[in-house]
Amino acid sequence: MARAKHQMKNSGSQVAKKAKSNEGPVPIPDEFKLLDKYWKASNYLSVGQIYLLDKNPLLRRKLELSDVKPRLLGHFGTTPGQNFIYCHLNKLICERKLNMIYISGPGHGGPAIVAQVYLEGTYSEYYPNISEDESGMAKLFKQFSFPGGIPSHVAPETPGSMHEGGELGYSLSHAYGAVLDKPDLVVACVVGDGEAETGPLATSWHANKFLNPKTDGVVLPILHLNGYKIDNSTLLDRIPEHELKSLFVGYGYEPIIVEGSDPGLMHPAFAKALNYCADRIKEIKEEAAMCDSQTVKRPIWPMIILRSPKGWTGPKQVDGLQIEGSYRSHQVPMASPKEHPEYLEVLEKWLLSYEPHTLFDEEGKLLPELKALVPPKDLRMGNNPYTNPHYKPLILPDYGEFGIEDPKRGKVFASDATHLGYFLKRVVELNAKARNFRIFGPDETKSNRLGAVFDVTTKQFLGEVREGDDRVSSDGRVMEMLSEHQCEGWLEGYLLTGGHGLINSYEAFIHIITSMFNQHTKWMKMCDDISWRNNLPSLNMLLSSHVWRQDHNGFTHQDPGFLGHVVSKKPNIIRVYLPPDANCLLSVFHHCLRSEHKVNVVVCGKHPAPQWLTLEEARNHCAAGVGVWEWASNDKGSEPDIIMACAGDVPTLEALAATSILRKRLPGLKIRFVNVVNLMKLAPQSQHPHGLSDNHFDSIFTTKKPVIFAFHGVPHLVEKLIYKRHGRNFDVSGYNEEGTISTAFDMTVMNNLDRFHLVMDVCDKIEHELFEKLSPEIKFSAVYLRQEMNTLLTKHKKYIAEFGVDMPEITEWKWDVEE
Amino acid sequence: MARAKHQMKNSGSQVAKKAKSNEGPVPIPDEFKLLDKYWKASNYLSVGQIYLLDKNPLLRRKLELSDVKPRLLGHFGTTPGQNFIYCHLNKLICERKLNMIYISGPGHGGPAIVAQVYLEGTYSEYYPNISEDESGMAKLFKQFSFPGGIPSHVAPETPGSMHEGGELGYSLSHAYGAVLDKPDLVVACVVGDGEAETGPLATSWHANKFLNPKTDGVVLPILHLNGYKIDNSTLLDRIPEHELKSLFVGYGYEPIIVEGSDPGLMHPAFAKALNYCADRIKEIKEEAAMCDSQTVKRPIWPMIILRSPKGWTGPKQVDGLQIEGSYRSHQVPMASPKEHPEYLEVLEKWLLSYEPHTLFDEEGKLLPELKALVPPKDLRMGNNPYTNPHYKPLILPDYGEFGIEDPKRGKVFASDATHLGYFLKRVVELNAKARNFRIFGPDETKSNRLGAVFDVTTKQFLGEVREGDDRVSSDGRVMEMLSEHQCEGWLEGYLLTGGHGLINSYEAFIHIITSMFNQHTKWMKMCDDISWRNNLPSLNMLLSSHVWRQDHNGFTHQDPGFLGHVVSKKPNIIRVYLPPDANCLLSVFHHCLRSEHKVNVVVCGKHPAPQWLTLEEARNHCAAGVGVWEWASNDKGSEPDIIMACAGDVPTLEALAATSILRKRLPGLKIRFVNVVNLMKLAPQSQHPHGLSDNHFDSIFTTKKPVIFAFHGVPHLVEKLIYKRHGRNFDVSGYNEEGTISTAFDMTVMNNLDRFHLVMDVCDKIEHELFEKLSPEIKFSAVYLRQEMNTLLTKHKKYIAEFGVDMPEITEWKWDVEE
Repeated sequence: MARAKHQMKNSGSQVAKKAKSNEGPVPIPDEFKLLDKYWKASNYLSVGQIYLLDKNPLLRRKLELSDVKPRLLGHFGTTPGQNFIYCHLNKLICERKLNMIYISGPGHGGPAIVAQVYLEGTYSEYYPNISEDESGMAKLFKQFSFPGGIPSHVAPETPGSMHEGGELGYSLSHAYGAVLDKPDLVVACVVGDGEAETGPLATSWHANKFLNPKTDGVVLPILHLNGYKIDNSTLLDRIPEHELKSLFVGYGYEPIIVEGSDPGLMHPAFAKALNYCADRIKEIKEEAAMCDSQTVKRPIWPMIILRSPKGWTGPKQVDGLQIEGSYRSHQVPMASPKEHPEYLEVLEKWLLSYEPHTLFDEEGKLLPELKALVPPKDLRMGNNPYTNPHYKPLILPDYGEFGIEDPKRGKVFASDATHLGYFLKRVVELNAKARNFRIFGPDETKSNRLGAVFDVTTKQFLGEVREGDDRVSSDGRVMEMLSEHQCEGWLEGYLLTGGHGLINSYEAFIHIITSMFNQHTKWMKMCDDISWRNNLPSLNMLLSSHVWRQDHNGFTHQDPGFLGHVVSKKPNIIRVYLPPDANCLLSVFHHCLRSEHKVNVVVCGKHPAPQWLTLEEARNHCAAGVGVWEWASNDKGSEPDIIMACAGDVPTLEALAATSILRKRLPGLKIRFVNVVNLMKLAPQSQHPHGLSDNHFDSIFTTKKPVIFAFHGVPHLVEKLIYKRHGRNFDVSGYNEEGTISTAFDMTVMNNLDRFHLVMDVCDKIEHELFEKLSPEIKFSAVYLRQEMNTLLTKHKKYIAEFGVDMPEITEWKWDVEE
Repeated sequence: MARAKHQMKNSGSQVAKKAKSNEGPVPIPDEFKLLDKYWKASNYLSVGQIYLLDKNPLLRRKLELSDVKPRLLGHFGTTPGQNFIYCHLNKLICERKLNMIYISGPGHGGPAIVAQVYLEGTYSEYYPNISEDESGMAKLFKQFSFPGGIPSHVAPETPGSMHEGGELGYSLSHAYGAVLDKPDLVVACVVGDGEAETGPLATSWHANKFLNPKTDGVVLPILHLNGYKIDNSTLLDRIPEHELKSLFVGYGYEPIIVEGSDPGLMHPAFAKALNYCADRIKEIKEEAAMCDSQTVKRPIWPMIILRSPKGWTGPKQVDGLQIEGSYRSHQVPMASPKEHPEYLEVLEKWLLSYEPHTLFDEEGKLLPELKALVPPKDLRMGNNPYTNPHYKPLILPDYGEFGIEDPKRGKVFASDATHLGYFLKRVVELNAKARNFRIFGPDETKSNRLGAVFDVTTKQFLGEVREGDDRVSSDGRVMEMLSEHQCEGWLEGYLLTGGHGLINSYEAFIHIITSMFNQHTKWMKMCDDISWRNNLPSLNMLLSSHVWRQDHNGFTHQDPGFLGHVVSKKPNIIRVYLPPDANCLLSVFHHCLRSEHKVNVVVCGKHPAPQWLTLEEARNHCAAGVGVWEWASNDKGSEPDIIMACAGDVPTLEALAATSILRKRLPGLKIRFVNVVNLMKLAPQSQHPHGLSDNHFDSIFTTKKPVIFAFHGVPHLVEKLIYKRHGRNFDVSGYNEEGTISTAFDMTVMNNLDRFHLVMDVCDKIEHELFEKLSPEIKFSAVYLRQEMNTLLTKHKKYIAEFGVDMPEITEWKWDVEE
């Protein structure tokens, strides 16, 4: 007889329902008969998408080889389980009028979600040619994972999706990001047991400690434990049940396990589990509603572990080998009949096992009694407006009031990031009511000198709070967990549902999320290609604590290489800014927060440093993106002998210091000083929308005169951007992977980016390339100047070895060249 | 009265000892009196390193401002706890003669480990100038985090270390990698509660399911729960104890909690916990010794949670604010007296609280009764030979027997990776006895076509094994977990202790571990700089399932950008290979496995593809790294009109197909065909040891003749490598971030890398740059040829939209130009 273990404590600590059948299948209870048929319809559509072309979608005639796709893509293994979940969520939505999004974590599970959104009717609204009839179904089948068609996983092309099931690891962090500041939203997040093995996913379970039950929405994680990956069992499927439960209790959830394979038992068990969760969620929300949002306590949220067979409802055996419930059904249960004609019959039998003729009418429309299970239009998960947001722009202050009125050409010292903090504080205030702006960072917001925001908000954390905890509450705009993955995932989820924000990170450690950056940028690129997708708020990445000022943290903390990766992405999306001072940083960041559908990468210093441009100058300089600083140059409109160029705050300082030495010691040398704040200005116009025209570029940099370029990052990066330019006149200094614990100035010395090396680079040019063109006086002085620089470098090394700090002539250096 | 809760079940499920004092400190039990002094000595040395220069190390006179460092680095917060652990591990080692390594996960905890290794006497053996006396101690203090000195975290400079505490997240995966195949080794891995929040760390707890208790060593994780990060509490410190315990039970451990702050109680409690763990480990090992290594079961390993105050033994309060036990002692408890002279007295009092004059003798040597606590020389953790291995090279077969004797210029089709699999199978066999070679991959070894290795080994996994599981056992050479982080961490730990191996990954998803690659490469660079560090086995990264054959998986799986990042690292370490066929792949990989102290990144195809070079040709071609393929060229020693160059298997195919079209349709055009297998050959000699001389480069590529370069990766990458070359004659085609689900050939079309576009690129050159130099006939034909190519592209698009596969003239194309 069928065994059904059922256990539910009043405490709600566990609901376990084992649904197993030993003596043939249990009949579907009446209550679930229609739901079961709806599930069958979705499974039928899923298998159809994977296997069929467009000729015989409803099997009105015997299946022929020509009906079948030559290449099979998409994973069936995860599909029926996800269809099962989606159908049941629909039921829950209808019964409780929930505002719900479905996140599909498992890879290549596209056939399920596309089938569901099609059954809802939503798909045909977005893609009218995929109509709700036989011809639409035919196209639905063919387009799936077919050239010119749609991807095998849930993707930007899928209505209702704000998460792509391509690279694994980020479903849950996206879910937790999506519900922030949306108290009425529930995100059902299906996590595959393969994905659950990744690091980012493993830590994202802890995001429940940052969720405010009053002011944020709810994440309902559903761990889909179907046991297999491509070629292995999954780890969580192969630990004892008490470990499995302990793990999720330890993560702070109330895990509810639903296990089995017999639909007659599984429908009621899963519905019961969902209802239990919905009740708990309601209780938690009602309780929280009566609390103060600043002090409301962390509840124990429920989550579901669904143990269902891999490739459920698929062929039990093929060629004598177990398929359903084994890793062999992870991808497709069997190869295409195009290659193995003997499978044609198996496929037909399989398709017919869903009884399509009892699901769709003559025209290929879903039968009305099944269509009645679809939630009301505004509650369909395929159409949730948060998944394609019309977002509200931020209210931004004039950044001028947070800048430095008169920086006196470097005589005023200030921390760039601190001034940005003042600006961000005001942004937090102005948008407090809208609740649509958040700052994310791995325990570094204060270290990155954005601490001013804590005057007006707190870090949101719902773990235990103890006396002495500083600026922590249950409701704040700053999210900090020591996981760049979680911070980026939160932010992406928040942006993808219409919020605004930024992530701040040490520059070296932004590499941790290179792959997340890739995938988010790909999503944005696809939004550009899909007509109905709206533009998203920009992803703003603030890289403070950068390579040149990680002298105290050492070699592991020194790496500016991320920028080089950024510029390999789509030019219409990526932007790289290297503001040289606080006023420029304010101008740039104001622009970034106003921008739309971009990834803005901004590198900024946090330590007190000389300030250069007035607010007005900064505004104009940043608008231009690159420009000659006349006050530092002495070429006065004529062709210079040499160009000193720079990008980044520390390189700007060194380049100016070098220029001041050169102008004093070689007054006859005509120097043009150029600063680049918008890196993409260097790229040819054909390669990036911000690229300067060749004429404009040549008018600044010439094509023949030596350009000594002091660069924040790896020299290669500049070299590749300018490869197509006319001139070959750049010598780029930058980070050459040399570093350790030392002084800030010594960091530049180790990488030949310091003022002395830059002066020597110019002397080199004078002695060689420019030899014919300059006066004997300059050439003579250059020889001596070079020696003197060498002496200073020796002196520097001795000084730091003795005193551990830079010599006063470095730290106290001021720009003192007359304009 | 002091309260001491003590609970130990016979089942060993929990040992908890709370050590709290309400009525003044509990006296140190006699048994621990010397150990407590040793701990004090290490804490004294730690504070000395952070705060003091070299003038007054033993406080023989009153502390003066000139004795103090101007800049304070290193984190005191974690230090006393780690000293406490290290001292107690020493005791355990002495009592049980354990072969043990200490991994220090927490960031900037250098002062502790350096102090310990110095007290052992090991430090002075590696650095004789840091002698065991007052003058050595003076240097020890000054060098710490001082220019020209040593880093603030455990680093390659630290004897006994094989893990750097810089970037957080990898301590535990390194530990689990280190113990593989070293059955007698125990790695005590201290995980900071900050680090524990990262994704990679969160999933690495699960590595216990892959450890063979018979043939591998033991990891003893010690979670150091001291509660604070830079600016926040830690997550795991702020969950209820039952959740904390559940979490680690769920991870499959037996957690033992030791909590308190009173040394009088903490010493016996921690010693008891360690002894309990050592007993359990011994029992487990003894039990396993009697089992078959293939079927031995997973034990429940013990782990310790140590709850001790942040900044333990430091100042309780400064300026009226709590320091010990708060986030304020995460870094240094108070700023330098150089800036706040009022702290000078606090510092002196603090240093004297350790009673240095009762620890060190007149000469500054540790007192003999304390020195007696140091383990025997061959068991000192600072000197464990695994941490600076003299590794044994792999036994390698001649790769020729796994190659393709006569590939008939592309008429033989084969999967490159499959042939590599044959070779690796033999490598596994030849080194089976040595047990020093492993393959790591995230569930992809078979998918990446290396499945032949499963003829002779298995995947090692100690979770539950079920009927139908394929090639899984408790003792195998292949490690698969769906976490690139864990796979890379395992491999790094294995290499750092003298093993050999490779990681295989989908090319797009190698970005997940960009940051781990950075840090490992930095470690290797530092090894080069440190005289006593031995060379390490190379890190081999096999990127199969690459961008051009991820047509079926879609846009998220298409990203060759990692190569661009690789080349920004130190030239003497990094290598990039793009073998065009199976024989070249074998030659390259054989070379990689033989190489020393390199990071070898190899991109290879896995799908059946045409094979080009004979074994002999491949051997020579790979040795040269770049070369003219005479059989495909028709310039016959003269200056060519055009150069068709390529790197990567798919670009090679397309470039050859384009060449065959050109040679047939424009027979008068002199084409030189160049293939690049070793990408770094393109870099100038001054930038990379493999770089061609300018003369050599120019002799191949000329400086004026157009080079149409079909490249596997992002075009920028080639452009930056050749920026300093004489010519400007390269037009590079490569991945332009265009992709979706389509056919393999269509992927190249979308990115203008296909044969038709390449031919059109040549036609462009003929019509413009080469116009003056070529015969009217060629120019005339080129116009028509270009139109024809356009027609073929249109035909291609139509064909795939209808049939979903490439047209036969693509799939069946063969090289058929006479040599």
